[in-house]
Amino acid sequence: MKKSGITPSRLENFPEWYQQVIKEADLAENSDVRGCMVIKPWGYAIWENMQRILDGMFKKTGHQNAYFPLFIPLRYLESEATHVEGFAKECAIVTHTRLQANDQGKLIPASPLEEPLIVRPTSETIIGESFARWVHSYRDLPILINQWANVVRWEMRTRLFLRTSEFLWQEGHTVHETSAEALEEAEKMLECYREFAENYMAMPVLCGEKTEMERFPGAVKTLCIEAMMQDRKSLQAGTSHFLGQNFAKSSNIQFVGRNGENQYAWTSSWGASTRLIGGLIMTHSDDDGLILPPRLASQHVVILPIIHHEKDKSAVQEYCAQIKAQVEKVYYDDRPVGVHIDGREYLNGGVKKWEWIKKGVPLIIEIGPRDWEKNSVSILRRCTMERYTLSVDEFIQNLGQELTQIQRIMFERAHTFRKQNTQQITSEKEFVEFFEGQGGYAVTFFAGDRMIEEAMKEKFSVTIRCILSNKTDENPLGTCIFTGRLTQQKAVWAKSY
Amino acid sequence: MKKSGITPSRLENFPEWYQQVIKEADLAENSDVRGCMVIKPWGYAIWENMQRILDGMFKKTGHQNAYFPLFIPLRYLESEATHVEGFAKECAIVTHTRLQANDQGKLIPASPLEEPLIVRPTSETIIGESFARWVHSYRDLPILINQWANVVRWEMRTRLFLRTSEFLWQEGHTVHETSAEALEEAEKMLECYREFAENYMAMPVLCGEKTEMERFPGAVKTLCIEAMMQDRKSLQAGTSHFLGQNFAKSSNIQFVGRNGENQYAWTSSWGASTRLIGGLIMTHSDDDGLILPPRLASQHVVILPIIHHEKDKSAVQEYCAQIKAQVEKVYYDDRPVGVHIDGREYLNGGVKKWEWIKKGVPLIIEIGPRDWEKNSVSILRRCTMERYTLSVDEFIQNLGQELTQIQRIMFERAHTFRKQNTQQITSEKEFVEFFEGQGGYAVTFFAGDRMIEEAMKEKFSVTIRCILSNKTDENPLGTCIFTGRLTQQKAVWAKSY
Repeated sequence: MKKSGITPSRLENFPEWYQQVIKEADLAENSDVRGCMVIKPWGYAIWENMQRILDGMFKKTGHQNAYFPLFIPLRYLESEATHVEGFAKECAIVTHTRLQANDQGKLIPASPLEEPLIVRPTSETIIGESFARWVHSYRDLPILINQWANVVRWEMRTRLFLRTSEFLWQEGHTVHETSAEALEEAEKMLECYREFAENYMAMPVLCGEKTEMERFPGAVKTLCIEAMMQDRKSLQAGTSHFLGQNFAKSSNIQFVGRNGENQYAWTSSWGASTRLIGGLIMTHSDDDGLILPPRLASQHVVILPIIHHEKDKSAVQEYCAQIKAQVEKVYYDDRPVGVHIDGREYLNGGVKKWEWIKKGVPLIIEIGPRDWEKNSVSILRRCTMERYTLSVDEFIQNLGQELTQIQRIMFERAHTFRKQNTQQITSEKEFVEFFEGQGGYAVTFFAGDRMIEEAMKEKFSVTIRCILSNKTDENPLGTCIFTGRLTQQKAVWAKSY
Repeated sequence: MKKSGITPSRLENFPEWYQQVIKEADLAENSDVRGCMVIKPWGYAIWENMQRILDGMFKKTGHQNAYFPLFIPLRYLESEATHVEGFAKECAIVTHTRLQANDQGKLIPASPLEEPLIVRPTSETIIGESFARWVHSYRDLPILINQWANVVRWEMRTRLFLRTSEFLWQEGHTVHETSAEALEEAEKMLECYREFAENYMAMPVLCGEKTEMERFPGAVKTLCIEAMMQDRKSLQAGTSHFLGQNFAKSSNIQFVGRNGENQYAWTSSWGASTRLIGGLIMTHSDDDGLILPPRLASQHVVILPIIHHEKDKSAVQEYCAQIKAQVEKVYYDDRPVGVHIDGREYLNGGVKKWEWIKKGVPLIIEIGPRDWEKNSVSILRRCTMERYTLSVDEFIQNLGQELTQIQRIMFERAHTFRKQNTQQITSEKEFVEFFEGQGGYAVTFFAGDRMIEEAMKEKFSVTIRCILSNKTDENPLGTCIFTGRLTQQKAVWAKSY
């Protein structure tokens, strides 16, 4: 048996370890189509759970789902200048609508379109076109829409889940009567993402605002959640944009206000994608593979019957089936605990066990003839690799609590890691030392400008991940480490995905 | 108040009535992008319910969801000859991946691809490529996958939900060890579709097999469900294909069999789409608009507070809130009854009521001061437009049963309509008379060939919708009305969407 499930280890080669976890946990694979991935059932089940939970949160906050076209006429994209600049460099363009055989019998594109269509990289412009039709009066507002969809950005350097040419996401798009309401919406949805990341993914995040350099093309404000991965780099895990009247003007979303006058609306948009799965992997997995937080696991318990002699077979199988039936009756997080018996007889127990360890199932239980005789179960708790034995009754009674405990352990471990790798930095010298060392999150007072950000990016490949949210007026003043100016503004710097 | 909600009526102009129902029920709209629709929240909520139910059925029958690339390299599509022929005439082709300003500052496509990419019209070929990697031994089989996705077919004549350039669907793709298992799978999933159509959509369907003329390009057998719309035309509402080894050969899906030898696998595929919403509309709606079957409704009850005097306002509002709270506690079809109070004060009661009638909510209840005094509710049952009054207790107690009853009435009404418009035809003369008259389903013995089908299509615009499933050997012999030959085979002919 191998010493650990994944080669190389995190320390040896983090990027390669990441690819191997995905492969060994059977989450996804590259396809022949440049940068497009295949999400395999074990990976897609995580996405389905993410969808179910986020969708419930969106509906609870008054949003409705709808669906808009995959294709955007070029002129729509052009209508917001910053926006088109941000997306023109990497997009898939449909130019023809028929295949025709040429003289050599080879199929080539035919029937060219008069106006090329862009496969949506994001839908502000195409949804804005509908909103302009839907909104007439202040009484029609707010409009609170979400869409689950695929989007395409023709990325040059791709990595499974983190950066792919096609990815799955949700994009919220809302229209409001006032600037304050649109901003409040953007903040409310960021809080939704925070809650989801921390309470469901067990992934601690920082909330803040992007600087102009990292802002969404066309936005007035881009809010974000940022999570620290185990290589101390930061992952932007969700963004929420206050768009001001920029897109309302380019899409002509106007309404008659309370004063009887025509005016432009205020909009927001917010999104989270299959990238979250990449974040989940890099936050929790270890050198033995994936570790799933129970609230996002589709299977919580896998039962492995251990049968060495044919004579024990039926007794052990029956015992496993009984345990399964009992586990299914336990509720955790408002749904029945997911349980599976791996009955494949052509594989030996060790091989099967390692498969499930690498797939990150929270609890793996092995059942042999001795367990049956003693009415007990041998349990492997994946997140700590601890082994323990309980009577069946204790196991069943304790199961919900054990899953809650695992969820907590995972959050706390990630939280501790972030804390250990976050440093308050008070001088430029310290800043340089930090990033010439092993790095992490450097928190500094910052009153500088884009030129400083660009210089730091060039020198150390670090950027401001966010300006921390400043919810009170009591934030202390401090000295910007670059300009020496006094400021309340705190920036978090890090390398990032 | 208008006499009916929709103009024109079904009898006056069925196609235009259909468009108006969609508009007035606020289900969907055309976009600026040729043939692509916007599915609005009220329409998308129906799709979400369809997804939830079908997805549950697929999982119960052992299928898992996954996700495959949107783009198909041209060479994949070409690998199955019939298949590419079937889809080459109408597809969206991506040829470039960047926008660049030309001399006049106009953005034009740049960075041409070496090999064009086809936006998937269906995914047999791209999923086959993954299956070829996943399958090694008979022990890996069956592979039972489903995908929820958007697909694109560049249709020339489009109609909301029924035929759009982009549509949403699910596509099942499975791989099996033997021909018999793949065929059994195709039949099992057809039965899934039948159950969904009849028990959830309240839409009776015929099950059968397509003739070669109407078969899916590349399939060996195409099974289908067909439903009669209120204009007596038939709608193909779901298809399930036995693909033989055709796609296994073109995608090279091979495995080592029990005999130790390499062999090609057997595959199936099956799909149902947002077209089902078109079927739902044309099966059940009337001249007052949409009628939703309770099992697919997101809102089952809408409460309209009727307030003529300010002094009654708070009492009526409180009473409505109490009723809503009670309704929410009622379970129907394993979920809480959906209820909404339409509290918009700037619209009068009649306008609001007609909005909900046109949107097809099963039960609309109006609550005025008199209802409050008498502790009663005035109910409008949308599917029959009957009005009745009950005490609140009776209403709540009866609610689940009433929704079950509505679901049954809707199915029976559609079933009776189909029966009345289906005729057993025993001669060519009768056949001609039937289709020169008002038409419907003509059931005939049929032992003819494609030439006869093409002639009938030319003369009467009718096709064989399906050869009825023949499950027993006791089916009687009869005479083909075109060839005079004896046969057991019964064909259903109709005009179709």
